Amino acid sequence: MTGARKRVGVLISGRGSNLQALLDASVDPQFPAEIALVISNRAGAYGLERARAAGVATTTISHKDYPDRDSFDGAIDAALRGAGCEIVCLAGFMRIFTPGFVNRWPNRILNIHPSLLPSFTGLHVQRRAIEAGATIAGCTVHIVTPDLDSGPILAQAAVPVLPDDTEDSLSARILEQEHRLYPAALAWLAEGRVRIDGNRALVNGASASGVLLSPCP
Amino acid sequence: MTGARKRVGVLISGRGSNLQALLDASVDPQFPAEIALVISNRAGAYGLERARAAGVATTTISHKDYPDRDSFDGAIDAALRGAGCEIVCLAGFMRIFTPGFVNRWPNRILNIHPSLLPSFTGLHVQRRAIEAGATIAGCTVHIVTPDLDSGPILAQAAVPVLPDDTEDSLSARILEQEHRLYPAALAWLAEGRVRIDGNRALVNGASASGVLLSPCP
Repeated sequence: MTGARKRVGVLISGRGSNLQALLDASVDPQFPAEIALVISNRAGAYGLERARAAGVATTTISHKDYPDRDSFDGAIDAALRGAGCEIVCLAGFMRIFTPGFVNRWPNRILNIHPSLLPSFTGLHVQRRAIEAGATIAGCTVHIVTPDLDSGPILAQAAVPVLPDDTEDSLSARILEQEHRLYPAALAWLAEGRVRIDGNRALVNGASASGVLLSPCP
Repeated sequence: MTGARKRVGVLISGRGSNLQALLDASVDPQFPAEIALVISNRAGAYGLERARAAGVATTTISHKDYPDRDSFDGAIDAALRGAGCEIVCLAGFMRIFTPGFVNRWPNRILNIHPSLLPSFTGLHVQRRAIEAGATIAGCTVHIVTPDLDSGPILAQAAVPVLPDDTEDSLSARILEQEHRLYPAALAWLAEGRVRIDGNRALVNGASASGVLLSPCP
C-alpha cells in the first residue's frame, strides 16, 4: 500500500455486525482504510460498544434532536468532517439522507443491502426473496445516490435460498457474505480503484472482483 | 428410475440451444423425460434441424396462419396432446400464451429465462443487467403462469458479470449455465418431486437443488 489510509466514518443504528467486519479488516495496517468515527442515531446501539472496544471514537446524533432532516444531516456532515473522514460507510443505518447530504459526498458513501439489487429494494428483503420463491439471494455493496438502493453497484455476493429457510436463517447466511463483501468493496474505493461510468461502477485491475459466489459445491 | 419417462414437447422459435441441452440429457435412458415433439412457430428455425438429427418428431405451427391467439394456442395444444405430451418446455419460444392455454397445462409448462428473476423480466435482460451495473447475473427455470416471467421458480444459476462484458459475452456465459440448469429442472418436474406452495416451487428431497453457482473461485 502506498499513501495514507483513508479515514472512514461508519453510520449505524443497531447491532453493527457489518461495522465489526470493517473494524476487523482495518486492524491490518495494510488495509487501505481506517475507521475514524462511528456515529449512531440511537444512543443504545450495540455497535457503539463494538467501536469503543476497538478504540474508535463514537458519537450519538439522534434524529429526534433535530427539527428536520436537513439539520440532522448537517450535524452528521459536521461530525464526519470534524473527524477528517473521506469515506462514509452505512452499516444498518436506518435513516434516509437528503439529496443535499448525498451530493456533498459524491461517490464517497457506501451502503450494504441484503439483496441482489436491483431485486428487492427497501425493507424486509430477505423475507420477500423467500416469498418470491427465489432460489438465489445475496447482498450488494453500492454507492449511495439520492435514489434509494439504486446507486452504482460495487460488489455482490450470491447465496442459495434453501427449501426450509426462514427469514432469520436466510438473513444469517446473507450476513456472512456481507461481512466478506463490505471490507473488500471499501478497500477498492479507498485504493482509488473505482471508476463510475453512468450508473456502473468499474473496479480497475480486478476482473470479476465484484463477485463472491458462496458456498461452492 | 421407476415408471415411464414423461413425454415432453419443446417449443422453439430459433436456434434451439436449450433444446439441444434437453435432447442431449434425454439420450440417457435414466433421464426421466423424453422429447416427444418439437414445435416451432418459425419454419426455418435451426432448432428443427437439431430435433430431426436426434430423431425427434417436429412440426411448424406459424402464428401467421391463425386469425388470433386463441386459435394459434389451440393448434399448439392439439399438437402437444396428439403427441401424448405431459410436460411443455419453452426454449426460446417468442410467443406469449393466452391464460386459457396456460391454465390447460397447470404447473406443466417450464420456461428458462436469462436473468435472476425477479430481476429483469421481459426482453434484452442481459444488456439490461450490464446497464444496471449488476456484478452477478444468471438464469432461472420457472413454471409458466399467465403472468409473464413470474411463475414459481424451480432453479436458478448465478454467473459473474465481468467489467468488459458485452451483451454477447454475458449472454454466452449465462447460456452455458442455462444448458446445465434446464435439464436438471425438467428432471425434477418429470420425477414428480416438485410441489407448488403459493408462488413457491419446492423440490422434495433436494436441499439447495435449485441452485447452481458458477464458476467457483
